Amino acid sequence: MLNNIHIILVGITHPGNIGAAARAMKTMGISKMRLVQPKLFPNVEATARASGADDILANAQVFDTLEESIKDCHLIFGTSTRSRHLTWPTLTPKACAEKSLKFGGNVAIIFGREQSGLTNEELELCHFLVPISTNPTFSSLNVASAVQILAYELHESFIKQNESGEIVELEYPPASAEMMEYFYKHLEQTLIDIEFLDPEKPKHLMRRLHRLFNRSQPIDSELNILRGILTAAQKAKSS
Amino acid sequence: MLNNIHIILVGITHPGNIGAAARAMKTMGISKMRLVQPKLFPNVEATARASGADDILANAQVFDTLEESIKDCHLIFGTSTRSRHLTWPTLTPKACAEKSLKFGGNVAIIFGREQSGLTNEELELCHFLVPISTNPTFSSLNVASAVQILAYELHESFIKQNESGEIVELEYPPASAEMMEYFYKHLEQTLIDIEFLDPEKPKHLMRRLHRLFNRSQPIDSELNILRGILTAAQKAKSS
Repeated sequence: MLNNIHIILVGITHPGNIGAAARAMKTMGISKMRLVQPKLFPNVEATARASGADDILANAQVFDTLEESIKDCHLIFGTSTRSRHLTWPTLTPKACAEKSLKFGGNVAIIFGREQSGLTNEELELCHFLVPISTNPTFSSLNVASAVQILAYELHESFIKQNESGEIVELEYPPASAEMMEYFYKHLEQTLIDIEFLDPEKPKHLMRRLHRLFNRSQPIDSELNILRGILTAAQKAKSS
Repeated sequence: MLNNIHIILVGITHPGNIGAAARAMKTMGISKMRLVQPKLFPNVEATARASGADDILANAQVFDTLEESIKDCHLIFGTSTRSRHLTWPTLTPKACAEKSLKFGGNVAIIFGREQSGLTNEELELCHFLVPISTNPTFSSLNVASAVQILAYELHESFIKQNESGEIVELEYPPASAEMMEYFYKHLEQTLIDIEFLDPEKPKHLMRRLHRLFNRSQPIDSELNILRGILTAAQKAKSS
């Protein structure tokens, strides 16, 4: 459902891009925008470039952190125009759109800063990376144009789904980002308790574990098992 | 070939849109722009919005009439966001892109005025109409965004990604099944040691954990971390 899809813009410095993104979304029937630390918002230039998509700007939610903005989302995509040296599941924009529309829960599609995109830490919050292929010698895709491309693919999938009468396959949704966060906190504490993690010298351990577990997209009942194991390990230490 | 494709913009009034279209083209590897009766060109705002795609603006050709601009083109597409009451062959943006890339001669893809698009007379110069599907209650697609969508589809066709859409570029290969088996044995023993798993009543626990970890396709170094954690948990118990 297009209605479940949240377009998340991180650290946008030019308010015109926020307006252009709102217009791009609305032309394709997508209405939910979330902004993480926009430099200027609300702003007249955003409204001007929205060119009538004012309702999207009026309803846009603003957050201090990306983590906060995706708390209630169960399927999370991070877009980029650069290929990254990350071992991470990757989907094309079209495959991202198809997956999003079949999904029952809240979906987040994240777009990064004009100059620098998303950081590796931000990308690691995502289940899938969605690289947008560009000209290798000029990959300077405007952020609102990137939103337009994804919104277009979502709308194309939406039309196709309507035509085919395809039934939304409700699998079990992966746990929410918030539940994952609780799990990572519990994991970190347990690793400290059993003296595997030295909080003075954490190195990249938690980041690597984030990457590993995010990739497997645990569902709630699996998280419960994992947290049960952590509790057992904590008890083993104190017994 | 992307090189045969000419993006033709008719009667653009805001020079910023010409610049944004040039940028959209260049990000997708398309370089040939033709302008029919632009209101203001060249123009500083066009250059600003081109954001580095200056070469496309510098090489853009300007014409008085659409007929002149497509004289040397052999395959001509006209884009629109509205459905027309014309009996005319119609292609989706994707099909237009595929057809364009297979074609040996010069291709023209025409985009109309900001407010009113292309006239019926102009559309009749085309071999195919290419309607871009939009939200029926808000079809105000920016012209540079329309160029971005077609340029994106051209570039996607160009790189001909596999149909499944799943790229999955795993930089490091996942651990071997043998390594996974050692890991699962170690995991099982640890769960017994910390009294999370009762070997008399194993239920489906190990099967569920198999499923979870197999899904994340750990690489060797990640398995080493996980096995390090298991060893620490075992030590915690015996200490």
